Amino acid sequence: MTVETWIEAFADAFNAADADAVAALFADGECYWRDLVAVSWNLVTVEGRDGVANLVRNQAAKIGPITITGTTPAASTAPGQVEGWYTFETPVLRGKGYVRLREGLAWTLLTSAQELIGFEEPEGRRRPEGAVHKPIKRRRTWTDERQEIAATLGHSVQPHCLIIGAGQGGLALGARMKRIGVPTLIVDALPKVGDSWRVRYRSLCLHDPVWIDHLPYVPFPDHWPVYTPKDKMGDWLEAYAQIMELDIWTSTICRKASWDEQDRRWTVVVERNGETITMHPRELVLATGLSGIKQVPAIPGAESFQGVQFHSSDHPGDDRFAGKRCVVVGANNSAHDIAADLWENDADVTMIQRSPTTVIKASSLRVLQEKGYYSEAAVEAGLKTDDADLLVNSMPFRAREPGDRANCRAIQEWDKAFYERLAASGFQFDFGEDETAIGGKYMRRASGYYIDVGASDLVADGEIKVRHGGVERIERNGVVLSTGERLPADVIVYATGYGPMNGWAEMLISKEIADKVGQCWGLGSGTAMDPGPWEGELRNMWKPTAQDGLWFHGGNLVQSRFHSLHLALQIKARMEGIATPMFVAPTIERPPLTAD
Amino acid sequence: MTVETWIEAFADAFNAADADAVAALFADGECYWRDLVAVSWNLVTVEGRDGVANLVRNQAAKIGPITITGTTPAASTAPGQVEGWYTFETPVLRGKGYVRLREGLAWTLLTSAQELIGFEEPEGRRRPEGAVHKPIKRRRTWTDERQEIAATLGHSVQPHCLIIGAGQGGLALGARMKRIGVPTLIVDALPKVGDSWRVRYRSLCLHDPVWIDHLPYVPFPDHWPVYTPKDKMGDWLEAYAQIMELDIWTSTICRKASWDEQDRRWTVVVERNGETITMHPRELVLATGLSGIKQVPAIPGAESFQGVQFHSSDHPGDDRFAGKRCVVVGANNSAHDIAADLWENDADVTMIQRSPTTVIKASSLRVLQEKGYYSEAAVEAGLKTDDADLLVNSMPFRAREPGDRANCRAIQEWDKAFYERLAASGFQFDFGEDETAIGGKYMRRASGYYIDVGASDLVADGEIKVRHGGVERIERNGVVLSTGERLPADVIVYATGYGPMNGWAEMLISKEIADKVGQCWGLGSGTAMDPGPWEGELRNMWKPTAQDGLWFHGGNLVQSRFHSLHLALQIKARMEGIATPMFVAPTIERPPLTAD
Repeated sequence: MTVETWIEAFADAFNAADADAVAALFADGECYWRDLVAVSWNLVTVEGRDGVANLVRNQAAKIGPITITGTTPAASTAPGQVEGWYTFETPVLRGKGYVRLREGLAWTLLTSAQELIGFEEPEGRRRPEGAVHKPIKRRRTWTDERQEIAATLGHSVQPHCLIIGAGQGGLALGARMKRIGVPTLIVDALPKVGDSWRVRYRSLCLHDPVWIDHLPYVPFPDHWPVYTPKDKMGDWLEAYAQIMELDIWTSTICRKASWDEQDRRWTVVVERNGETITMHPRELVLATGLSGIKQVPAIPGAESFQGVQFHSSDHPGDDRFAGKRCVVVGANNSAHDIAADLWENDADVTMIQRSPTTVIKASSLRVLQEKGYYSEAAVEAGLKTDDADLLVNSMPFRAREPGDRANCRAIQEWDKAFYERLAASGFQFDFGEDETAIGGKYMRRASGYYIDVGASDLVADGEIKVRHGGVERIERNGVVLSTGERLPADVIVYATGYGPMNGWAEMLISKEIADKVGQCWGLGSGTAMDPGPWEGELRNMWKPTAQDGLWFHGGNLVQSRFHSLHLALQIKARMEGIATPMFVAPTIERPPLTAD
Repeated sequence: MTVETWIEAFADAFNAADADAVAALFADGECYWRDLVAVSWNLVTVEGRDGVANLVRNQAAKIGPITITGTTPAASTAPGQVEGWYTFETPVLRGKGYVRLREGLAWTLLTSAQELIGFEEPEGRRRPEGAVHKPIKRRRTWTDERQEIAATLGHSVQPHCLIIGAGQGGLALGARMKRIGVPTLIVDALPKVGDSWRVRYRSLCLHDPVWIDHLPYVPFPDHWPVYTPKDKMGDWLEAYAQIMELDIWTSTICRKASWDEQDRRWTVVVERNGETITMHPRELVLATGLSGIKQVPAIPGAESFQGVQFHSSDHPGDDRFAGKRCVVVGANNSAHDIAADLWENDADVTMIQRSPTTVIKASSLRVLQEKGYYSEAAVEAGLKTDDADLLVNSMPFRAREPGDRANCRAIQEWDKAFYERLAASGFQFDFGEDETAIGGKYMRRASGYYIDVGASDLVADGEIKVRHGGVERIERNGVVLSTGERLPADVIVYATGYGPMNGWAEMLISKEIADKVGQCWGLGSGTAMDPGPWEGELRNMWKPTAQDGLWFHGGNLVQSRFHSLHLALQIKARMEGIATPMFVAPTIERPPLTAD
C-alpha cells in the first residue's frame, strides 16, 4: 500500500460518506486522525476506528468531497512504516496532510487546512503591484492608505477582529490576518512593541533554540543566535510589526469587553493614552499570554514584611540586591532563572521548593532537537519550517507519549551524574507522572519544570540553597516555613506562577463567560493540574469556544506561528460567510497515566 | 568537454603558472575572464587570450594554487554552449564561478570570491549561541554589549571602517561588515534610517521590481509589492538596520576627512547633534549615493526669479502647486516623475528637454525581467538571489551589449505604437548610441533615460508640454529658452541631475585626492559622458582606488547587495593582514561603439 493508493481510497470512502469504509482504512486498535480545521472546522483528534467513523458520519456530507491533488512519499521513520505527504482540496479550502501507514492501514492521519479557495494569501504571483504605472489625478499613495487606517481603524472604522496583546502570539496572528485580509487591530498595554520581552529580567534568553522560534513569513536571518536574548527578541518583534504593517495601539489598556447577543458583536472599552475609546469588533482574541494573571499566594503577614517583595514577572535583574538575603518562593523555570540571576549579582539566595520539579538540561534537549525537525541539520536537508510544523503536529498528543518517555529515559542515562549530584543536594525532581517529562508537563499544565541553563549546578553546589515545604507566614524581616524553620530575608520573590488563561476572560469580560468557556490549555490527561476526561487537544486554544466571537491564542513561538494560521482561517471563513460546520470530538474517560 | 574537465584543466594550468596554457583554454577571438576579488584582489575583466595570459602571468604565483571543490552543470542558454557552476579554493579564500564553453573553449569565465578561509560569516552551524548556559558572576548581556558599543564606538574605540551614508548602499555594506567582523560605524546626515527614501516626493516607488531589490541576509517576505513605495522602503531599511544590529549615527554630518600618510589612517571630523567628533578609521567608504552632489546649472537671472525654484531632489510632491505654471528643466527619470506628480496635483507643467532621452516602458522591462534571473518564475524554479547575482555578473559588460541590443529591438517592436505616439508629440528619444538603451546608459553614465511608469502618456497626450533646447535666462516670472520662446512660470524645478560621485571626495577630502582617484562609474565605452579608454569594469566602484583606504560604494539595490560582499572581503582581508596582491587590467583603445 502506498501513500497515494491509501489516500485515494480514503478520499473515495469519505466522499461516499461511508463511515465504516473510512474506519476500515485505519488500524484496528491504536489509530488517530488529527484534523486541523479542514474537516472539523475545529482542532480535533479522534481515536480508534469508532472515533474515525464518528467524524466521517458527522462531517462528510457537510464538508463535501475531498479531492487529492498530490502525494509525496517520505522516508520511513519506523520499521515497516509507510508514510508521506499529500495535498487536497474541499469545495472551500486547500489542505495538506501526512499519513503513517502500518501494514496498509493508517496509524496516524493529519488533515490540515492551508488556505481558503478564493481567499488565498497574496504571496508570490499574487503579490500586489505597489505602484500604479499610469497617471492618476490626486494619487493615493501607500502612505496615504497607512495614515488613513491609522486615523480611522478603531474609530470610524471598526476592526473586524480585535487582538488583545502584541506579544509574539498577537503579532503572529496579526500578520496572518493582514495577509488573509481580515481588518484587525492589536492593542497592548506597554508603550512599544517588543516591550513584553524588554521588561523581563536582564539575563533572560529564549529557552527554545532559533529553529523553533521563527514567526510566520519573515524568518530570522541565518546568523541569528541559537538562544535569542530578550531585548533582541523585543527588537525583532518591533521590526516584524513594522515590516508586516500591523495596526497596533500601544500604551492601550483593555478595560472591559461585553458580548452583544443582538448585534452579535463585542463592545470593548479601551484606554489609550488617557482617552477612552469604545470599539465593536465581531471577533475578540485574547493573546494575553499562555500565562494568565500573575498569581501571588496570600501568605499571612506578607503585609508586615519590611523588605522588598514582588512577583517573578517584576524581577528587575540588576545588581540592586547584591549582598541581600533573597528568598525565591517556587522552584520551576522562573524561580531558577531568577535565583541564578540573583546569585550572579552577588545576592544570597534560597529557593523554597513546594513540589518536585522536572529538570532537563537545555543541552540535552538540544541533542534531541538536533535529531528532529527543528535543527540546522533539518535546514540543511531542505526542510521548510512550515513542513516541520506539520510533521510535528501530524503526531497526535497521545501518540507522542512513548517518544517522550524514550527521550526522557535517554536523558536520564546521559545526565546520570548530573541527576545524582542534584539528588544529593536534596533538590526534589521528577520526570512527570508517566515519565513524559517536559513534553508532557508543557501541554498538560505549562508548569512544573525547569529547562536547565545553569542554575541546577548552583543548586547542586549549594550556591543556591533550597528549602522544602510551604511558606507558613511572613514576618517583618523573614519567612517562616511549614517546617518551622525561620529564614531571614531582605527580598521575597514570588515565582508562584500565573492564574489560568481564562482568568483574562473573567477580568475583561465576566465570570459568567469565563466559566461558560471553561479551562484553557491542558489535554485532560488526568494528571496533576490537568483533570480528565481526555480531550486529545489543548482546550479552547485557537479554536471555537463556548462563547461566540471569543478566541484564545497563545503558547510558545512554534504554537503562535503554526496555530495562528488555523485561527486566521476560521475567522476569515466566518467573515466571508463560508459555512464552518463544527465537529466536537467526544471526550474519553481513560485510566490514569503511568509510565510504560 | 564538460564544465568539470574544463575547470580542472584551467586550475592545473593556472597552478602551473602556465599563462599560455590557460589562454589556450579560452576561445581564440572573443573571450572574457571576469574576476571579482578572487584572483585579482580587484574587480577586473580581461579580454582575449592575451588578456587572460596577462592575468595569469601577474597573479598565479602570488595567489597560489586554485583547488576546484565542486562543479554543477547548468542548462545551456545558447545553442551548442556548455555551461555551469563550480566552486574553488585558493590558500586564503573560497570562491564560486560560472563558465560558458563554446566548442570546448571558454567564452566567459567568472571567478568570484565568496568568503575568506578562517573568517567565514557566522551563519548556519557557525551562528552564535546567544546565551551562555552556565552561571556567570556579573554576566554581560547582549544589551550590555550593544550599549557599550553605542557608548564607545567612534569615541574611545575607533571604527576600523567608517561608512558615510546610511542608504541601501551603506546598510548593505554595514550588514556585510557586521557579519564578517569589521568594526564599522555608519554616519548619515538625516534623522532616521530610511529617511533618504522618505524625504523624496510622495508618489515615488522603486522603479525596479522586488526580485532585484533584496538586501543581503534578510530577503523581503513573499507578499512584498512588486514596486516598493518609498516610505515602505524607508521603513524596511529602518527595520533592516535594527535586525542587523548596525551601528549608525544619524543626524550626523561629515565635515572633513584627511588621510594621514604616517599613521595610514583617516582623520574624519563629524558633527553629531551639534557636537564635533573626530575619528580615525583605517578605511573610509563613501556610500553617499551613485548620484553625487546635486547640480543646478547657473542660469543668468535665476536670482531674480520671484517664484519657487528648487532641485528635483527637493521636490515636495504634494498639492501646493495646483494651478501653478511649473517648468521642469530636464527630461530624464526625475523630470518625468516630477512632471507627472505635478500634473496629478493639477499643476500646469512644461518640461524643457535639452537632449534626447531613452524611454522604455517599465511594463516592457518587466516582460524581459520575467524571462530573466530576477522574477517570480526564477523564484519558483528555486534560483537563489545570490546565484542570480552571480549569473548576471558572470556576463562581462562588453558581452552584454548584443543582448541589450536584441532586447532593445524587441521593445521597439512591442511598443511600436507607443513610440509613434511619443514621436508625434515632438518628444525626442533615442536608444543610446549603440541601441543598448537603458542597460548601456545606466552603466556608462547612470543618466539619460526614463523608465516609463506613466508620464510618457501625459507627454504624448500633451498633458505635459515639452519644449526643446536650453534655458537661456530666467526672468522675474518666467524662463526664456534658447529658441527665444518665453515661458511664464511660478515654479522652476531643476531636474538637472547630480555631479560625479567623486564630487563627494572633493567636498569631504580634497580636490587633490578627488583628482588622483579620478572618475567614478562608467566603463570607458567612448560614448557620451563615458570617455574611453575601455576599462571593462565600473571605474573606482567597490574596489581599490588610487587613494589608500578610500572606497566608493553605490548603485542600485542589486549592486549594493552584490558588490558589498566584494568590498567587505577586500577590507576584511586587509584588516586581517591577508596579502591582497592587486592586478589592474590594462585599458584598451577601442573604435567607437555602433549598433550591430
